[in-house]
Amino acid sequence: MVHVPYPQAVRWSADGRAVEIIDQRALPGREDILALKNAEEVAIAIRTLAVRGAPAIGIAAALGVALEASNSTSLDKPAFDRRLLDAISTLRLTRPTAVNLSWALNRMRNVETANAHSTPPEIACKLYGEASAILAEDRAMCRAIGEHGVALLPENPRILTHCNAGALATGGMGTALAPIYIAHERGLKVKVFAGETRPLLQGSRLTVWELQRAGVDVTLVADVVAATLMQQKKVDLVLVGADRIAANGDVANKIGTYGLAVLAKHHGIPFYVAAPTSTIDNHAATGADIIIEERDADEVRRGFGTLTAPADANVYAPAFDVTPAALITAIITDGGVIGPGDTRDRSGDHR
Amino acid sequence: MVHVPYPQAVRWSADGRAVEIIDQRALPGREDILALKNAEEVAIAIRTLAVRGAPAIGIAAALGVALEASNSTSLDKPAFDRRLLDAISTLRLTRPTAVNLSWALNRMRNVETANAHSTPPEIACKLYGEASAILAEDRAMCRAIGEHGVALLPENPRILTHCNAGALATGGMGTALAPIYIAHERGLKVKVFAGETRPLLQGSRLTVWELQRAGVDVTLVADVVAATLMQQKKVDLVLVGADRIAANGDVANKIGTYGLAVLAKHHGIPFYVAAPTSTIDNHAATGADIIIEERDADEVRRGFGTLTAPADANVYAPAFDVTPAALITAIITDGGVIGPGDTRDRSGDHR
Repeated sequence: MVHVPYPQAVRWSADGRAVEIIDQRALPGREDILALKNAEEVAIAIRTLAVRGAPAIGIAAALGVALEASNSTSLDKPAFDRRLLDAISTLRLTRPTAVNLSWALNRMRNVETANAHSTPPEIACKLYGEASAILAEDRAMCRAIGEHGVALLPENPRILTHCNAGALATGGMGTALAPIYIAHERGLKVKVFAGETRPLLQGSRLTVWELQRAGVDVTLVADVVAATLMQQKKVDLVLVGADRIAANGDVANKIGTYGLAVLAKHHGIPFYVAAPTSTIDNHAATGADIIIEERDADEVRRGFGTLTAPADANVYAPAFDVTPAALITAIITDGGVIGPGDTRDRSGDHR
Repeated sequence: MVHVPYPQAVRWSADGRAVEIIDQRALPGREDILALKNAEEVAIAIRTLAVRGAPAIGIAAALGVALEASNSTSLDKPAFDRRLLDAISTLRLTRPTAVNLSWALNRMRNVETANAHSTPPEIACKLYGEASAILAEDRAMCRAIGEHGVALLPENPRILTHCNAGALATGGMGTALAPIYIAHERGLKVKVFAGETRPLLQGSRLTVWELQRAGVDVTLVADVVAATLMQQKKVDLVLVGADRIAANGDVANKIGTYGLAVLAKHHGIPFYVAAPTSTIDNHAATGADIIIEERDADEVRRGFGTLTAPADANVYAPAFDVTPAALITAIITDGGVIGPGDTRDRSGDHR
C-alpha cells in the first residue's frame, strides 16, 4: 500500500464493506475512524458533522448508496428499488444546501435508472463502481490542483492559509493544501502559517492537525496576526480555497479571506485561490450575486462552551466574504492556473 | 450623585474606607463589585487580574497605599513607615512591567518622603489626597480625550474599535471609548462595532459589556469581519487605544491594530488612535525600538478551557503590533488632536 501522508477523510474500508471516515468532531484531540455500515449510518455522520467539506460529503453519500445496494442484493427487485430510493432521499436531506451532495446523489440515481432492467447484484456492482469513480475523480482533481499549484511556489515557500481547504474536506489531498502536500512530498522546505479561522476554528482544529500529522512545518496564529506576518516579511504568498467563484472571478470563501487579500495587496504578496473548476458558478455574474449567509450569534458569543460576551450581545456573523477578482493573483484549478478574469465558461460541471 | 453611564473600574467606596473595583474576572457573566480593605487585598486583585488596564492598575495601587496608611494611623512612626514601605513594595511586585503602576507608586512614595517629619495621621491624609488626585487626573484625562475626539466624529458615527481601551481600563471613561461615551451623552446616534480581539477576547468580554451596559448601540464581530464591514461601507472610522507611541508617531497596540490600519487605508476610512500624551515614549525613536512580547501558546490553543488545536501545535502569538505613523490619520490626546508626525516631545510625563 502506498504511503499517503495526508489523512483520508472518506474511503472504503479494506474489505470494501464499510465507509471509513475520520470523525472530525473528535479532532484535534483524537483521531477516531468510524466504519459506517449502511446508508443510515452515513447519513447520521453527515448530519452530525462527523464528516464535513463539500467534496467529502458528496463522496461519503455516494459510497453510502453503494453500500446500501451491496447490503440489499438478496431483496426482490421492488424491495431493492425502494431501499435505494429511501437511502438516497435520507442522504439528500442531511445537508439540504450542499451542492456537491446533491450532485453526487444524482450521479448514483442516474446509474440506477440507466440499469433499471438489471438484477439487484448487477445494479449494486454498477453503483459500487460509480461511487468509487466519484472518489477517484475527486482524488485526481485534488492532485491536479496540487501539481498546477506547486509550480507557482518559490523555493522554500512560506505560505499563509485560512480555514481548512485540506484533505479533511475532500476525498484526496485537498485544494489549497494540495500544492503544500506535493511540495512536501518532493522534499521542498515548506513553512505554513494557519489562521485559526474564527469563529469555528477550522484552521486550528483541522488544518494544523492534518499538516502537523503529515510532517509539514505549520504554525498556528490568531487571524489578526496575518498582517504582522506580512509586515515582518515572514510569508511569501497567501493560498486559500473557495466556496464559490463568480463568472467574473470574484471569489466567495470563508469569512476572513477578503481581509487577507487586501493585506496581501498592501504588502505586495501574491494571493492565490485553489479550487476545482466545478466551483465556478456561471449563474453568478459577479460576487454581488452571491448571497452571504449569517451564522448563529452564539458561535461568537460562546465559542466552545464558555460565555465570552454578554449573552444577549448583538452579533454580526457573516459565514463568508467576497474577494474581488482584482485582488486575486491567480486561481489554481484542476484544469490549470487561470487569471481571475479567465473564469467565465471554465466551469467543468454543475455540482 | 451624578449619573455615570460608564462602569467605574476603580473608585473609593462611599465611606472612603475601601477601594471598590469591578471584578473583571467575572465579566461578562456577572458584575461583581469587590470592596478591598487594605493594600494586600488590592495587590491580590491586581495580581489575579480582577483589575486590569494600565491606568486602572496604577490608580488601584495608589488608593491601596492610601488605604493602608489610613488603617495604620495608630501605629508609632517607625512601624507606620515600615507598613507603608511593605505595602508599596508588595504592590510594585504585582505586575513588574506595568509602567503606570510604578509611576503611581512613585508619586505616593514621594508624598511620604516629602512629609517624613509629619505624624502618621497627617501623612495618611496627604496620601489620601494624592491617591484621589491620581484618580481625578485620570478621569479628567479621559474626558479631555473624549472632548477632543468627539469633535472629529461625523453625524451618526459608525465606529469600529478593537480590544478594550474603555472605562474598564481606566479610572474614567476610557481612552478610545471616551469620544463614544461623550457622543452618546450628547444624544448622537452612535453605532459601534467591537472586534472580539483574539486570543483573550477583551473586545467581546469587556468592550461589548461596558458599551451595552451604558446603552450604546454595539455589535460584536469576529476580528476577521472588520474587512467586510469596511467593504460593505458599514463603518465611518476606526478608533483604537495605544500601549506605547514612539517619538515618530508609530503606535504599538494590541495585536490586530496594524491590520485594521491597513484595511482602513485601503477603504479610505480614517484611522484614529486615542491615548494620553503620557503614552508617547521619546526613548523609542520609531516602532522598531519597541520590543514585541509573545503570549503563551495555550491562549490560542485552548482558549477558555477547550483544546481547539493539537496540544503541541507551534504557535506564534505576539501580544501587540506596530502601526506605522503613515497609516494613522491623527492621534487624539488629552492635550488635543495631533498629527502622527507631531508626537515628538509631546509626552506629558514619564509614566
